[in-house]
Formats: sequence, C-alpha cells, structure tokens
Amino acid sequence: MHKLLKSGTIALGNEVSISGFAAVGAKKEGEGPIGSLFDLIVDDSYFGESSWEKAESKLQRNALEIALKKAKLSPENLDTLFAGDLLNQCVGSAYGLRDFDIPYVGIYGACSTMAEGLILSALFTDAGFTRHSAAVTSSHFCSAERQFRFPLTYGCQRTPTSQWTATASGAVIVSRGSSSPVKIKSVTIGKVIDYGINDISNMGAAMMPAAHDTIKRHLEATGTQVSDYDAIVTGDLAAVGSELLVDSLLKDNIDISKTHMDCGLVLYDRASQNVDTGGSGCGCSASVLCSKLLNELAVGKLKNILFVATGALMSTLTIQQGETIPAIAHLVQLCSNIEGDTQ
Amino acid sequence: MHKLLKSGTIALGNEVSISGFAAVGAKKEGEGPIGSLFDLIVDDSYFGESSWEKAESKLQRNALEIALKKAKLSPENLDTLFAGDLLNQCVGSAYGLRDFDIPYVGIYGACSTMAEGLILSALFTDAGFTRHSAAVTSSHFCSAERQFRFPLTYGCQRTPTSQWTATASGAVIVSRGSSSPVKIKSVTIGKVIDYGINDISNMGAAMMPAAHDTIKRHLEATGTQVSDYDAIVTGDLAAVGSELLVDSLLKDNIDISKTHMDCGLVLYDRASQNVDTGGSGCGCSASVLCSKLLNELAVGKLKNILFVATGALMSTLTIQQGETIPAIAHLVQLCSNIEGDTQ
Repeated sequence: MHKLLKSGTIALGNEVSISGFAAVGAKKEGEGPIGSLFDLIVDDSYFGESSWEKAESKLQRNALEIALKKAKLSPENLDTLFAGDLLNQCVGSAYGLRDFDIPYVGIYGACSTMAEGLILSALFTDAGFTRHSAAVTSSHFCSAERQFRFPLTYGCQRTPTSQWTATASGAVIVSRGSSSPVKIKSVTIGKVIDYGINDISNMGAAMMPAAHDTIKRHLEATGTQVSDYDAIVTGDLAAVGSELLVDSLLKDNIDISKTHMDCGLVLYDRASQNVDTGGSGCGCSASVLCSKLLNELAVGKLKNILFVATGALMSTLTIQQGETIPAIAHLVQLCSNIEGDTQ
Repeated sequence: MHKLLKSGTIALGNEVSISGFAAVGAKKEGEGPIGSLFDLIVDDSYFGESSWEKAESKLQRNALEIALKKAKLSPENLDTLFAGDLLNQCVGSAYGLRDFDIPYVGIYGACSTMAEGLILSALFTDAGFTRHSAAVTSSHFCSAERQFRFPLTYGCQRTPTSQWTATASGAVIVSRGSSSPVKIKSVTIGKVIDYGINDISNMGAAMMPAAHDTIKRHLEATGTQVSDYDAIVTGDLAAVGSELLVDSLLKDNIDISKTHMDCGLVLYDRASQNVDTGGSGCGCSASVLCSKLLNELAVGKLKNILFVATGALMSTLTIQQGETIPAIAHLVQLCSNIEGDTQ
C-alpha cells in the first residue's frame, strides 16, 4: 500500500494505472514537432462554437470523450472528475464537463493543473475512493490573451520573454489495476513559492523556484537521484525558466542538465513558430503529457519519469496592485511496465 | 476503514476528527445573530491592508492561525492545505497562505469550497496521506462586488433576490484520531448541475438543484433518512433557494422542512441587516460552520448533521455570453461524540 514519506510526498502501491489518455489541439499545435501524436487537431480556433471560451470547453469535452474511448470506458464508469483551467472561475471546466453527470472536484493550479489532477486521481485510486477517475484541463490562446493581457485585435507587441498559451486540452483516465503499461508510482504536492518576480511576461522565471523546491523535496523524500530517471519533465518553464532551473538546482548539487525536458519547449518549434520563449498554459503540459510522454511510456521508450507541471498563481488584479507572482509545481512519477526500445 | 458506497459517496472509518476550527469576520458579521461566536471580528473592512483583496488574504491567514492555535498545532504539523476562493485565479488563498510553507492543493468550488476542502481533508486523513491538514476559504463583500457586479462607489441598486457576500473566512483542521469531539463520518462529492437559470441575482434558485441532487444521492447511497439527522444545513441558498429546495425535495418524498437550515439565513438578521434574501460567498457557509455549527457539535447540542455547501460556477463572462449557471453542492456528514444537552 501507499506510504506518506514526508509532508506532500506519497509513494503509491502497485495498482495505480493510466488506462486512457488523449490530447486535443488546434492548428498551431498540429503544425508543431509533436502534432502528429495528438488524437485530434481542429484547424478552426472556434471549434465550431460562438466564442473562444466555448471552444475551450469543447476542447475538454473532446479530450475526455476520446480518453474514455481509448480506455474502453463510458462516463458512468468514472467515479470522480478532477478538472480546472485558467479562465476566471475555472469556467472552461465547469461548462465543458457539466453534461457528464460525474462527481466533480474543481481544482485550481494554473498551468500545474494536470499534475494536480493526476495527484488527486492517483491518491483517490490508491485509497479506493474511486475505481476509475479522470484528470482534465485545457487552455486556449485567444481566451487567455484577452483575459490576462490585451484584446487580440489590439495587436499588442509581445515581449521577448513572453510565452505562447497553448490551445490544447489533455485528459487522463486513472484506474485501479496492474495490467496497463503505465503506472503512477509516487507524487509530491507543491508548495506556494514566491521569490519576488513581478514581470508577468516572464512566467518561466517566476515559476522556476517552485519547480526547484518540488524536485528537491521529491528526491530527498524518496531517496532517489536524478540518474534514477530517464527524464525530468517540467511544464512549462520555456527557454528562460528552463535555463534558470538547471543553474539553480546545480547550486544544490542536483544536475538535471542531461535529464531535463520542458513541455513549453517540446510543443512548438521556436525557430519557425513565433512562440517567443516557448509554450505555456494548462493545455501545454497536459497535451505534451497526453501525446509524446504517455505514448513513449506506453511502449517502453521512456521507463521512469518525473512530470513536474508548474503554475503561476497571480491574477491581473494582483499584478496591478503591485504584488509579486506566487507559483507552484506539482510532481507525478510515471513508470512504464514495458520492456521496450530505450534507444 | 472507508467504503466507497456509490460514485462520490464514501463512508469513512472512525478516525477522521476535527481538531481545530476558527471563524473570522468583519463588522456586519459581528453584528449578526452569531457574531459573538466568531473567533475574531475586525471592524475595519481593509483589515489594515491597502486593498480589499489583500484584506481577504489576511482573513484566511488569521483564520488558519487561530484554528492551528486552538488545535495546539503549528504550521509544520500540517501535511497539506486545501484552499480556494471566489477571486479570479483564487488569489485570496494563494497570496493569503503563501508564507505557510505547506504542500498546497488549490481548489475551486465557488461558495461550496469549504465543503470541497473538508471532503479532500477527510479523505486524505482517512487514507493516511496526511496526519493533519486544513481546509480554508474566504470571501469579502467589497472584492466580490467589484469583481462580479459593480464598483461599490457606483452605488448600484440591488435586486430583491440578491444575496450579501459575507466578509468572512473559516479554517478547519482535520486530524487522524478519535479523541476529538467532532468527527467526519461520510462525504458526498457534488456533480455539476445546470437547470438553465441565468439570473446572477438569483443564485439561490440556480444552486438549489445541485443541493437537491447531492442530498438525494447521499440519502440513497448511505441508506439513511432525513430523520437520522438533527439538521441538514445548506449554504448558501438564502430565502428564495431554501424555499425552493424544501418544495423540490418534497416531490421526491424527502421532507426536510423541519430539519433544514441555511447558512445564508443564519449569518445575518434579514429584518435589520439589509442583506436582501441572505448571505452568500465562500466565507458564509465556512464561517457559520466554524462558529455556530462546530461549536454546537463540540458540546453535543448537535449530534449528526449534513453540511451541504453550494456553489455557482459561472463567471461574469459566461453570463455576458448568454450562458446559464452551472452549480455544485458538496456534502460532509459531521457527528458529535459528546453526550450533551439536546434540548
């Protein structure tokens, strides 16, 4: 059974499996380096709806439906949904999932939401509070830009350290059982960390200290080392935050330079896709997880990874009031059962 | 140990206790019928801060500090915090609790947040994921009015069905053990229910169907009847929603007319306090729980109650886009160990 190793770090039993997952994106995500791994790409940024917010809700609905289908389950099989997003009052999730008739736990972790949902799903599964559950999240470039920054039609120039909010959703079904190729082995719940950054166009830097704290706490609590993992995948520090994280952990004698990967740098091709320092948004790490990462774990190409999604917890109002940016990073350890090609 | 009775309804073991709780409020809450039961009343609506949002964060900080003190615990003893609020991106909680250095699970359930946090705290405790944890939430009349409705200085007239957002916070410490006078015995996670109401000045009516659904599912899953409980306490349907709920449940042959109480009707005196149909906001049900209800359970005046906090999950944007209001109600069963005066 599970064991509480230290506050927030829990080693799970051997029965918490991922039975289905799906990534949904829009045109730009489809054109990126991992676009072909998405389950659904829709070129219309409205997804056939009358607003970007309704489109975002539809992204979540589609992702959950496809994940359920891949898991050979129907909505009635799910005991609980864990979902949230960046929109004010998390309406992407509440409206997107309201027709599913499933007990619903609304969560808010900004861009760390997928990891937060996975942690809750994994713990509920381990304890037997659910037989099957799902973690779902999304973001939409257009709904995020107008809520957090400027109306798109204003044509505002972007700063060099800015990131591109992914128009994407990811859904993961977590089930009790040992037959699935991917398991969740342990989790570390993030702490709210604020190192005094107040530039909302430099989220990677603001979120980096939270990733540092969570990775360090996880390694200490589990007694593992960086070399025990194929990859330590943050999401989404992008170019600036990633470089800072590697340097920062080195000062604690933790060298992730060979092991680190960032979802914000995986989703898009920075050289050709005009995303400044990389991707961001709840949908960024969620869709990278539900395309590239889980596919590679499912065939054994990846064996043992730490998925460390980061989130910035400010609002436009707190920034206007001169506040700094608190951040959080939640961690999930994912392992493959498959003896595959490790290249 | 615990038992999953039905999707979302879990009967807990006998070890999930409430070891501390605190309610904090402002002038109006202090002048209400249960004001004397609050742990702290501050007359200045800014709580000594420079904005209402910072004041709201301080409310949460104060509530958690007092609850910890009453539980004879320090922050290091808490394995996880569950917190959220109504402000965009839940900043009341992230900023209010960022200095505590405790693993943090951000939640969003609108005015149902206290029940959602208690559910997670209770389940984590039962499973052994935490030894001690806390559920915290808040609302502030002034920060809510300007975010959801009109700037206060505009002096807009309120509609007769409107509710008054409480300036209040509640914090509950949940611990493993059987010596505390109040225990959490079972929980039912709410579903997102949308019956097509789109009047944001009539939240009680919008949230009522969610309360109906959760109460009905809980009674069915646990095989209990209304008469098994001293009180079924909703929060915060206020006058309109409460009347609708009693009528609506009667159609399913569930008569709560003698057993029902609503936090929105307990916190203020409608006759003298100019709150229209009653109180609302995350802080309403949270502070009524952490003053009147838990105090009465702790001395055995209440024996066995259902705390059913309701939340409306819309945003101003979804309403502007012509959407209806999805709602949710989360339920926690609280029992007293004390042989007290039942009057």
